Order: sequence, then C-alpha cells, then structure tokens
Amino acid sequence: MDEFMEAAIEEARQGLAEGGIPIGSVLVHAGRIVGRGHNRRVQSGSVVLHGEMDALENAGRQPAKVYRESTLYTTLSPCPMCSGAILLYGIPKVVVGENRTFMGDEDHLRARGVEVQVIDSDECAALMRQFINDSPELWNEDIGS
Amino acid sequence: MDEFMEAAIEEARQGLAEGGIPIGSVLVHAGRIVGRGHNRRVQSGSVVLHGEMDALENAGRQPAKVYRESTLYTTLSPCPMCSGAILLYGIPKVVVGENRTFMGDEDHLRARGVEVQVIDSDECAALMRQFINDSPELWNEDIGS
Repeated sequence: MDEFMEAAIEEARQGLAEGGIPIGSVLVHAGRIVGRGHNRRVQSGSVVLHGEMDALENAGRQPAKVYRESTLYTTLSPCPMCSGAILLYGIPKVVVGENRTFMGDEDHLRARGVEVQVIDSDECAALMRQFINDSPELWNEDIGS
Repeated sequence: MDEFMEAAIEEARQGLAEGGIPIGSVLVHAGRIVGRGHNRRVQSGSVVLHGEMDALENAGRQPAKVYRESTLYTTLSPCPMCSGAILLYGIPKVVVGENRTFMGDEDHLRARGVEVQVIDSDECAALMRQFINDSPELWNEDIGS
C-alpha cells in the first residue's frame, strides 16, 4: 500500500488507541506529508475535527498554491463538512481508504472537479466495521445521525 | 435587527478587535444561543475555525436532535466548508447577514433542503468591505484564493 495511506491508517489506529474514532488523514504536498491528524471528537470534545479537518489544521496556514498542488489521503470517505473543506481550499485530489462503511460526498466532489480515488482497503473497512459495531452511538454522533 | 444576528455581529466585532477576520456566528436552539464564535485564523492560526465552525465547536457535542431543531446565524454567506458542516449536522435553517462581499454555497444548501434567509445587512457588509480593503491577502487566504 501507498506510504501515505499507511500514514493515514497509523493516525486512525492512534486515534483508536486514545479511545477515539479510528479515522486518520494526511495532507501531502510535493511528495511530503505537510499535515497529519485523526478524529478528535472523543479526545478533544471536538465536533469539527474529523480526521481530514485535523490534518488540515495541523498543516497550519498554507499558501493557496500549496493546497492546489496537494493530495489529501483519508481512511474513510469524506463527509459533507470535510468535502466542503477540500472544496474551500481547492485540493485537487483525494485518496479514500474505503467507502463501504460510510459513503461521503464523493459525487459532490467529483461534480466540482476533484479527483476522488477509492482504494477500497480491507484494513480501513475492518477498522471502521469493528468500531461501528462496538460504539454505534458515538459513530452516529460523528455523522450527525 | 434580530437579537441573534446582533450577537453574531458582536462576535464579528470582537474578532476584529483581536486583529482577526470579522465574521461571527451563533447557533440557536429553542430560542437560546447554545454556541457562539468568530473566525480564528489569525488568533489561533486555525484554518478550520471560520466563524460558523467556531460557533459549532463552542456549542460542544450536542445530540443530533438539537442540531436538527437549530438555526445558525452568520454575518457572512457560508463558504463550502461551513455549508458542509451545516449539512453534516442537518441544521435546517441558516440566517445570513450578507452575501454581497462573498457568495458562499447558498445554492448547494438550498438544493439539499436547507432554508437560507439572507437579511442583507448594511452593517455586516460594511464590516467585511472595510476588512477586505485593509487586509486583502488575509481575506484571500481565508477563502483559499
């Protein structure tokens, strides 16, 4: 597997180890990770720091040009909020670990010109399936259900 | 003017006084403000805490039912990220101070069933116009331009 998706999965596993929701993400520019993060709902009581948002936040304030040359890797299909952040910053490409356990706003991203590549990882899906089975209420809270 | 939009404007003015971008927001449930906030790009180096996101974050972890009965007030038309957050949590109504200085994803929100009411406030527009004039680079950074 791609080293960057491996890094996103490491973030997801770190989140799980912290008692959190196992979704991780990395922002990659010019072959280098410039931001990495994972869902912080449990750890920080955050309702906005999904994995993708945490990676963007940890990348810090970047010039518009950087976002426009970057790829965002995420272990799970991006929800409407994270998809909106991708559109706001004009990130042209998203690599998604899996969309079996949750289908995000991939169609909306594609309709706005973002390349969305789904690698359909068994490892990512197994992480989420186990988590959803163990903590369905927490998962529903995270997706506003 | 509506007391809730007044509160959002107070937040915007507080942000400006802190040296930040003057956009404020409040989340209102059952006639009461449950979260309020303003853009934190300058103050916290945040790329995700737009005014609306900061209001949601400050409201904390709410049951899905609360979001679905709430109205979000914001001094400026919500960008794709903030619009996505509104969709994620199923907030049914958004009251917008103005969309003259920036047009957000209002059409997308409406297409997904969100009621968007634009009050077209001169006060909100004047705040942003002055800010954009004084700090165009900071403003462009905030909208990924």
